[in-house]
Amino acid sequence: MTEQAQATLQNLYRIFTVSEAPSSTLGKIDKDIGDDLAGFLQKHVVASGATLAEIERDFSDSHMPEQPTFVSNYTSFIKDKLLAQSVHTASPGFIGHMTSAMPYFMLPLARILIALNQNTVKVETSKAFTPLERQVLAILNRLVYARDDAFYSSFIHDSRSALGVFCSGGTIANLTALWLARNQLCAPDGEFRGIASEGMYKALKHLKCEGLAVLVSRRAHYSIAKAVDVLGLGRDNLILVDPDDNNRVDMRNLRNACARVENEGKRVMALVGIAGTTETGTIDPLEEMADMAEKIGCHFHVDAAWGGPTLFSEANRWRMRGIERADSVTIDAHKQLYVPMGAGMVLFKDPQAVSAIEHHAAYILRPGSKDLGTHTLEGSRPGKAMLVHAGLHIIGRKGYELLIDQGIERAQNFADMITAHPDFELITAPELNILTYRYNPEWLRQKLVTARPEVAQEMNQKLDNVVVAVQKAQRAAGKTFVSRTRLAPARYQGQNITVFRVVLANPLTTDAILESVLEEQQEHIRTMSHLLAPLRELVARP
Amino acid sequence: MTEQAQATLQNLYRIFTVSEAPSSTLGKIDKDIGDDLAGFLQKHVVASGATLAEIERDFSDSHMPEQPTFVSNYTSFIKDKLLAQSVHTASPGFIGHMTSAMPYFMLPLARILIALNQNTVKVETSKAFTPLERQVLAILNRLVYARDDAFYSSFIHDSRSALGVFCSGGTIANLTALWLARNQLCAPDGEFRGIASEGMYKALKHLKCEGLAVLVSRRAHYSIAKAVDVLGLGRDNLILVDPDDNNRVDMRNLRNACARVENEGKRVMALVGIAGTTETGTIDPLEEMADMAEKIGCHFHVDAAWGGPTLFSEANRWRMRGIERADSVTIDAHKQLYVPMGAGMVLFKDPQAVSAIEHHAAYILRPGSKDLGTHTLEGSRPGKAMLVHAGLHIIGRKGYELLIDQGIERAQNFADMITAHPDFELITAPELNILTYRYNPEWLRQKLVTARPEVAQEMNQKLDNVVVAVQKAQRAAGKTFVSRTRLAPARYQGQNITVFRVVLANPLTTDAILESVLEEQQEHIRTMSHLLAPLRELVARP
Repeated sequence: MTEQAQATLQNLYRIFTVSEAPSSTLGKIDKDIGDDLAGFLQKHVVASGATLAEIERDFSDSHMPEQPTFVSNYTSFIKDKLLAQSVHTASPGFIGHMTSAMPYFMLPLARILIALNQNTVKVETSKAFTPLERQVLAILNRLVYARDDAFYSSFIHDSRSALGVFCSGGTIANLTALWLARNQLCAPDGEFRGIASEGMYKALKHLKCEGLAVLVSRRAHYSIAKAVDVLGLGRDNLILVDPDDNNRVDMRNLRNACARVENEGKRVMALVGIAGTTETGTIDPLEEMADMAEKIGCHFHVDAAWGGPTLFSEANRWRMRGIERADSVTIDAHKQLYVPMGAGMVLFKDPQAVSAIEHHAAYILRPGSKDLGTHTLEGSRPGKAMLVHAGLHIIGRKGYELLIDQGIERAQNFADMITAHPDFELITAPELNILTYRYNPEWLRQKLVTARPEVAQEMNQKLDNVVVAVQKAQRAAGKTFVSRTRLAPARYQGQNITVFRVVLANPLTTDAILESVLEEQQEHIRTMSHLLAPLRELVARP
Repeated sequence: MTEQAQATLQNLYRIFTVSEAPSSTLGKIDKDIGDDLAGFLQKHVVASGATLAEIERDFSDSHMPEQPTFVSNYTSFIKDKLLAQSVHTASPGFIGHMTSAMPYFMLPLARILIALNQNTVKVETSKAFTPLERQVLAILNRLVYARDDAFYSSFIHDSRSALGVFCSGGTIANLTALWLARNQLCAPDGEFRGIASEGMYKALKHLKCEGLAVLVSRRAHYSIAKAVDVLGLGRDNLILVDPDDNNRVDMRNLRNACARVENEGKRVMALVGIAGTTETGTIDPLEEMADMAEKIGCHFHVDAAWGGPTLFSEANRWRMRGIERADSVTIDAHKQLYVPMGAGMVLFKDPQAVSAIEHHAAYILRPGSKDLGTHTLEGSRPGKAMLVHAGLHIIGRKGYELLIDQGIERAQNFADMITAHPDFELITAPELNILTYRYNPEWLRQKLVTARPEVAQEMNQKLDNVVVAVQKAQRAAGKTFVSRTRLAPARYQGQNITVFRVVLANPLTTDAILESVLEEQQEHIRTMSHLLAPLRELVARP
């Protein structure tokens, strides 16, 4: 070995052994990073003004660095080029997506998670993290299904069953639920050894049908479409049912869609209800959907990735009525459980249903073992359930209840502000803490309602241009942030229009900040005479 | 609002705003956790003696805690009941699984990751983390495919293509690769609109075949079987090909298996090569597999979740020859890139192939956007690529090379120790840094080879009992840890036997520690006369 190689090796051993004493280089770097983070997070700015193209320049070398870099040099780079160019998702003015403030206690606790680096695929690499994860799933299963003590005592640590499955997020949770539904519908039956063994083609031949359909409101998260593709069902068999004027799935449309599926020689595999749609935060009529699923005899899945924690609120849990009849329920912990990114789960009504998706291997996951990896879609996984456990205990039901109730109240306040405002139009009133609105000034509003359809359409298109431009200008300015989406409200004869979308889950977002969002948007609009002129022209037309 | 609710609310605001000043309660807790972690990690103990059943008692309450808990109280609980009952996966004596030592610089850097809480599904919630992730994928794509500068300049930040996809781990990476392979094979063609739209049943009708097969060595990771189930192919169509005496896929068996698939009216969808099998660390003949895939015209995927970083070593990269011809390659960052749990990726030879699995949505991921979520199987994801970026820069190619070379050398040393040992038998010699062995004392060894088949079989079964008992005793004692699996070596006429499995990726594992592992096993064996007696009886039989 050369002298240089020896030196590199010594350095390598050091990076694997050095202790975190505050006086060590790493201790200093750790403190330095802590200070910088506190600085970044205390600034009430959403993002710096650098464009993506400018930032890309700092991340454009595709060569592997040959020599090692000092941690201190690397940290300086990261502070200048990454930290300073990040989005402050926890800023109270960042109300455009489902990222929110994070309880600060998550930081020291996450340190345990990273340092212990457990792998929950197997007890041998996770030990106490295995029962902890099962406990978290039991608590949330109880939140949804409210079974009795005897039920939870017998299933909480029973290796042959699962009260739910932990995963990296809602998309994998929804995929897991539909995978289970598919494998249960196409279970072994006589000569047929089940879809897990024989595949989709033979399963459909066995069932004597042309396809398996999943029915869900058009407001569904795109993860359902992805799952339907991955599972081999085909997106043609994802039936997107038009919602009613309140963005809830329309039960008559749903019933008709079911009938059509059956007339086409297909089978309804699952109904999916949404408890808190991504775009408008609305909750489907879960009770009626459960009735229909029962009648058809199909799987009923509820995507409560966003709305699940509403169940913590005594005042609002009635909105979720019927969720306890779902066969599976998705809840994201990195949304309204205020856990850092990368934590989702799906809960099962029947703890034994999981056998439909069980896999074993000789070197790990032997049948009968307590290894969580036997029934997770993912393999090696971090012990993120620990941070959910922390949130549940440190915040408590009463804490989550307050967070939920406050968000709903704040959204109502913001809706009132918008309704009272001369320049803005509320498009979807909040049921939970999500609403949409758009620019639609008083001088235009009446004209838009009375205009001939083709003129109204043109007006809406010109309004879309303003909304898109304002959203982009606001994002670029980096003071506050709302997102945008496309909706087809009944009041405009189902025409697709672009709207601002607001998610109010950050407890630090005040009414004053919401007012400032509207003020900032007005300021941007004032500079957009080139987009307003065509609108004024349309209004002036006889 | 009641007075109590007001107080809870005030507390809630505090947990979302408190700064991390060292003098604050949270600052103290943070320091305290740091000290405790250092204490835990410095102890060279693998695990405490508590049984899983004992630990479960502390995690058996399925009721949601009603009131909030103080962070300090919760932290005490976690230190006593979780930290103290965890597995020390980074211990140099923990050589049973693919978890290993972690470079300590990952800890302060992970703090940035957790505190910024970016969501890489979308640029609006991740900004600089998006180009950073694309850079990481470009560096690793270059490591595998070694294309020229012009290639990487044009694709590194091109939104319509992807040099790879980042995900939570190898299982999702393998699933993504096979999903892409399936959708490419069943791409739109004339009237047929592709499997993503029409589903598996119509795809097979269109292809006029009875099934799509995936062929892989019997040594494959179980994630391939899971993927085949999820994708609707059916596990019957996962053809597990017997390996040769060196645990590499046998090319003649593979060729015969391909012919059989075609005779059955099925299509070969993909060949999967393994670069570092989970159980024995062997590398399939990738060059020959690439030839065969080319001839058949099927997808060639390489699962290099473990072995990928071998490419960093000038002395050892020849072992991976042919990997650059794979259509897709899985590499896990939380294995031999020494990144904390939850980081994997799949790399693509053709950056445009990703269009086969693209999904869009109106509210995010608009076509043409730079949002990474358009082509990841997962949705919301943390910015884990940052820690891979850190490893690549701080450790550098030369650093990783030393880690890889040392692991391979250490495994060779351990193999020599075992071979020279009177009580142990090397079962699979290491190609990389993984080997298997078992208890098989000299007084038995010769008899076993010359015994009649049914006696040999009985002897092997009795040996299995000893190996299982030793592995369990060692695990319970918690000083060192090896895992176990089942293999069918040719020297025992393909009989399944239980073996110890050792993974040597921790740079702090010394030869002295390896010697102590064997010594400890001998000590355990000495206490097992009840398991040895039946063996002695068999040997004594005329």
